[in-house]
Amino acid sequence: MAQTNNVPFNMGKKPMFALQKDINKEVTIKLKNSLVYKGLMLNVDIYMNVYLQNADEYNEEGKRLTNYGDIIIRGNNILYIQANEGLLK
Amino acid sequence: MAQTNNVPFNMGKKPMFALQKDINKEVTIKLKNSLVYKGLMLNVDIYMNVYLQNADEYNEEGKRLTNYGDIIIRGNNILYIQANEGLLK
Amino acid sequence: MAQTNNVPFNMGKKPMFALQKDINKEVTIKLKNSLVYKGLMLNVDIYMNVYLQNADEYNEEGKRLTNYGDIIIRGNNILYIQANEGLLK
Amino acid sequence: MAQTNNVPFNMGKKPMFALQKDINKEVTIKLKNSLVYKGLMLNVDIYMNVYLQNADEYNEEGKRLTNYGDIIIRGNNILYIQANEGLLK
Amino acid sequence: MAQTNNVPFNMGKKPMFALQKDINKEVTIKLKNSLVYKGLMLNVDIYMNVYLQNADEYNEEGKRLTNYGDIIIRGNNILYIQANEGLLK
Amino acid sequence: MAQTNNVPFNMGKKPMFALQKDINKEVTIKLKNSLVYKGLMLNVDIYMNVYLQNADEYNEEGKRLTNYGDIIIRGNNILYIQANEGLLK
Amino acid sequence: MAQTNNVPFNMGKKPMFALQKDINKEVTIKLKNSLVYKGLMLNVDIYMNVYLQNADEYNEEGKRLTNYGDIIIRGNNILYIQANEGLLK
Repeated sequence: MAQTNNVPFNMGKKPMFALQKDINKEVTIKLKNSLVYKGLMLNVDIYMNVYLQNADEYNEEGKRLTNYGDIIIRGNNILYIQANEGLLK
Repeated sequence: MAQTNNVPFNMGKKPMFALQKDINKEVTIKLKNSLVYKGLMLNVDIYMNVYLQNADEYNEEGKRLTNYGDIIIRGNNILYIQANEGLLK
Repeated sequence: MAQTNNVPFNMGKKPMFALQKDINKEVTIKLKNSLVYKGLMLNVDIYMNVYLQNADEYNEEGKRLTNYGDIIIRGNNILYIQANEGLLK
Repeated sequence: MAQTNNVPFNMGKKPMFALQKDINKEVTIKLKNSLVYKGLMLNVDIYMNVYLQNADEYNEEGKRLTNYGDIIIRGNNILYIQANEGLLK
Repeated sequence: MAQTNNVPFNMGKKPMFALQKDINKEVTIKLKNSLVYKGLMLNVDIYMNVYLQNADEYNEEGKRLTNYGDIIIRGNNILYIQANEGLLK
Repeated sequence: MAQTNNVPFNMGKKPMFALQKDINKEVTIKLKNSLVYKGLMLNVDIYMNVYLQNADEYNEEGKRLTNYGDIIIRGNNILYIQANEGLLK
Repeated sequence: MAQTNNVPFNMGKKPMFALQKDINKEVTIKLKNSLVYKGLMLNVDIYMNVYLQNADEYNEEGKRLTNYGDIIIRGNNILYIQANEGLLK
């Protein structure tokens, strides 16, 4: 296991693995084009492709535009995923 | 099988595999350029390349523009795929 | 062979393989820059690079601009390939 | 071990490994779209995907816009990561 | 050898291999930025990097701008390569 | 070892290896967005990710804007790295 | 060794290998952003990363802007490399 300055470089600590804990929870996803999607993250892979259930679309100002049911967002469009659970910590 | 916080990191749960259940069903595909295509998803691969049968093209406002028969959309143009079945859940 | 919800994840069903059936047939190719090319698809690879014979170029409004003979289009410029056969199904 | 002009090409000295020392510390992340995020970097991978805890968003002029709790930023949006510890050296 | 609908998926028929027949012949190369280069294609690789001998540059309207001698064009800038031989078929 | 016209294709001569000699020296880094960073290059990898110590930011006109301490610049934003030592040769 | 129409598909003939003959010679490099750099190409790799010695920068109109000493240009910014030797052939 590679180490740098006594910090173990541990696969289990990487962000895409850590994101697994938010599966089956509500997340907010912001795209590069400024649109925002909220829904239940059924699953996510290492490219950040996301299967989002009961997805609501919002514009940049936070206005809810529509509901899409299930959408699969292609990861390369994503700016960040907000783990809503995080807000309560 | 790698795990994080007791959540199994299971290939079978990844979004591109989950999307396989929507093969041979009606889907709506939104591209980065804002155009929308609706049709029967005959197949899809891990890059999100999609073979779409009887594809209708719509503009951003939802107006139907034309029918293309069968089109193969290159995955890197896709913003998201909407599983229409999802709307009925 | 991996499966999800009893749908076999079969390489032979993937879109780029399915596209092989349209080799030696007339196709219409739309590029990201809105130009359209029609011709005989002599071959295509998994990156969607296409060798197109007797290629006619059209602008976005459908006006024929010129004939290029044989052109090899680099796949990453392509929005979608329309299988003209599909129109007759 | 490959060498050039007596400089050892040592994996342990590479920037993404060196960045591991800043895990669990405050960092500032500037995106290509000019937005800035500050928070605790829980982990980071070789693509610069970052799990950021208690993330504050700032605009280009340094005005704090909002707090997002935990966000996972997709690495390809990042311009640079500023190790705040570095400021005190 | 994989097959789909009795169409052999033959490496030898792929577009980048077919393009090898145009080595040492005159080609026309259109870039994404609309500039056009004509010259002798000394060689080409699978990324469409091209070594072009005695290259003339033309603008979008077909006006010859200058001669560059030998240029090596990076493949990712290319829209398509026109095999001039094809025009005579 | 592959050769072309008697020129050995030697890994040790490649640019990213040659750049290793500039580690622990002052460099100037120009980004695609026209901003310029000067500092001590602590390390660099084959993607041109750079760990820059005591980094000063300059605008396109050469005006010093601020000091960032340590920053890790993501390589895909970089236009070029100027080896300041080179200026004295 | 794969062949197509009796044209050997020979690694030694590929453009990036052929470019090796121009190492240690004067080259002109045009970037996607229209800036031009002239200097001695000390080395180049398969991504077209170039180590350029005594590099002069020119604008699109051919006006010399400045001298940078040694610069390492990231290959993905490059439109083409002009082998100046080629001009004399």
